[in-house]
Amino acid sequence: MNIEGVPPLEDLSKQIFIEGNTLKILDRRALPTKLRFMACTSLDDVAKAIKGMVIQGASAIAYAAAYGLALEAKRVYRKRAHETIPYLTGCAESLKMTRPTGEKLSRVLDKELITAKQAHERGEDLFRALVQFVEREMWRGRETAERCGRNAAALLRDGDRVLTHCYPGPAFIYALREALKEGKNLNIVATETRPYLQGAKLTTLAAKQVGAGVRLVTGGMPAYCMQQGVINKVLVAAYRIAMDGSVANKVGTRLYAIAARYHRLPFYVLGYGGPDYLTRCGDDIPIELRDGEEVTVFENRRIAAEGVEGFYPAFDITSPELIDAIVTDAGVVYPPFNEGFKRIVTTVRSSAD
Amino acid sequence: MNIEGVPPLEDLSKQIFIEGNTLKILDRRALPTKLRFMACTSLDDVAKAIKGMVIQGASAIAYAAAYGLALEAKRVYRKRAHETIPYLTGCAESLKMTRPTGEKLSRVLDKELITAKQAHERGEDLFRALVQFVEREMWRGRETAERCGRNAAALLRDGDRVLTHCYPGPAFIYALREALKEGKNLNIVATETRPYLQGAKLTTLAAKQVGAGVRLVTGGMPAYCMQQGVINKVLVAAYRIAMDGSVANKVGTRLYAIAARYHRLPFYVLGYGGPDYLTRCGDDIPIELRDGEEVTVFENRRIAAEGVEGFYPAFDITSPELIDAIVTDAGVVYPPFNEGFKRIVTTVRSSAD
Repeated sequence: MNIEGVPPLEDLSKQIFIEGNTLKILDRRALPTKLRFMACTSLDDVAKAIKGMVIQGASAIAYAAAYGLALEAKRVYRKRAHETIPYLTGCAESLKMTRPTGEKLSRVLDKELITAKQAHERGEDLFRALVQFVEREMWRGRETAERCGRNAAALLRDGDRVLTHCYPGPAFIYALREALKEGKNLNIVATETRPYLQGAKLTTLAAKQVGAGVRLVTGGMPAYCMQQGVINKVLVAAYRIAMDGSVANKVGTRLYAIAARYHRLPFYVLGYGGPDYLTRCGDDIPIELRDGEEVTVFENRRIAAEGVEGFYPAFDITSPELIDAIVTDAGVVYPPFNEGFKRIVTTVRSSAD
Repeated sequence: MNIEGVPPLEDLSKQIFIEGNTLKILDRRALPTKLRFMACTSLDDVAKAIKGMVIQGASAIAYAAAYGLALEAKRVYRKRAHETIPYLTGCAESLKMTRPTGEKLSRVLDKELITAKQAHERGEDLFRALVQFVEREMWRGRETAERCGRNAAALLRDGDRVLTHCYPGPAFIYALREALKEGKNLNIVATETRPYLQGAKLTTLAAKQVGAGVRLVTGGMPAYCMQQGVINKVLVAAYRIAMDGSVANKVGTRLYAIAARYHRLPFYVLGYGGPDYLTRCGDDIPIELRDGEEVTVFENRRIAAEGVEGFYPAFDITSPELIDAIVTDAGVVYPPFNEGFKRIVTTVRSSAD
């Protein structure tokens, strides 16, 4: 497949959208060789798609889940209008459990339930109200990512060789685009990010789409690259940020932060809308443990000896002491993060409203 | 395939052997699902097998190359006896270039050329002399690995959860076997080691063969495992050791050594026969850069976006300051390594003789 066929990766509305009574989700697992959409007609379909990594990323799964709840509202409402809100509340709780590490999934679903309640009380078309809610959330998410990306671009210098891990999402793309527009020459080094290869499949594609140089490495190569000058800074995303500056992100992030510190290279985090002010520190973030078979089986082929189990923590926590800056939509925050976050909290609240 | 069908991985003579006029090499890339041997009838075949990762590991490739040279000697000798030695010298030089990072390949081939010269001068059967030479080398290598493994077992404690990277070879297996025999309970965490997955394919198999517990993780997970207590020490092999204690090993080793230091966990190296006393420091070790396509293509499937290049340094250098001990056949060496190595150098010389 030619990369020209793929919609710009920063635009989530081209990857997750309602078509009639169906939610279409771009199957990220099939990239970069195939452009395939999964059609979800029930909440169950959506939950499976999220759990099964069809769609990934804290924001993307939140939007997909929220659309799923809208679909379910439509299905249920006609039959039992008065039971709909309690029922949807239960659905939202089970959706939240599909991927527990990020807080955006919970936050968006909770807001959606409030919208549902209000629409129900006002006798509005529930499905339409919820679809509009998700569209608004996506639009706001895009704004947040754009501002975060623009702020991050200021940390990128001409000639930078930037390591990233997993797929750092739209803010990364906006940051590259902005920096390139400013005439900076950038070379990205992307870790492939096993087992789902988001780095290989998405990050390399995104870098190509914006016109940055990009090379792919395996998860073991960053320390070599740091020692040899192949990379000179690190820029990753965050799945959830605690108020003390601890960052939950794709497992491996902590490893590369430690290596960056050892080599005295800056380690920056794309913090999008900022920290979750209900999460005090890293220990308060639940780490999703996924099925070990996702490690021992690769593209339907078993890679480990018979009887061997895999171990698959999907995220890890990078300690604040390893992080040089967290870039949010409201500005760049430097340590001590707790104080920095308090200064931007008003802005964050209004943008996440 | 059942693991019972696989010969004990520590026994290289079951993986690399002469059958008539053919060199049989166990294709490690096909493990753990298939037991497949590659038949090499020419030096070219052998060079391709080494370059193509059919056989891997500093010792194993040295033996395979040495057998290849024996095959070539047989082919050439009958026709042009007097030109054989200069010709074989040229062949050895090109074989050395297939994998430049380890020194054992060069060392064994140089010794083989001396054997060839002596056999030629004495009018002995050249092929037979060289095959016997390789068998002797393999036997000595086994002895070295056994002694190194026994020494390493003393560093393993009951209840240890040991991270290893890539496939650390026979000494690792001997170490586990010895420690288990002493009644120690051991759990291994093996990194899969992309792109060739030696950890998934070989290390998990070896651990299963000796009866140690083993789990597979991806290259990004060790820092999480260290922070959470899933592992409490690291034991890896060495591809080449410099006299200052710098260790060249599978790329990623440096990353895990840095993470171990950060988490205050011991980092041990299986040093087999000890350092290469012709290599002063890490900068003197050439790092093999392999084809980037080995990173962007996995089992014949492209995993990166079109036009994206991979970057593949096959090894990295772990600085001596990150290493707590290097275990050799002559004993455990602690920092400062230079002095420790000087003390054991007599023993090393005699065993590598």
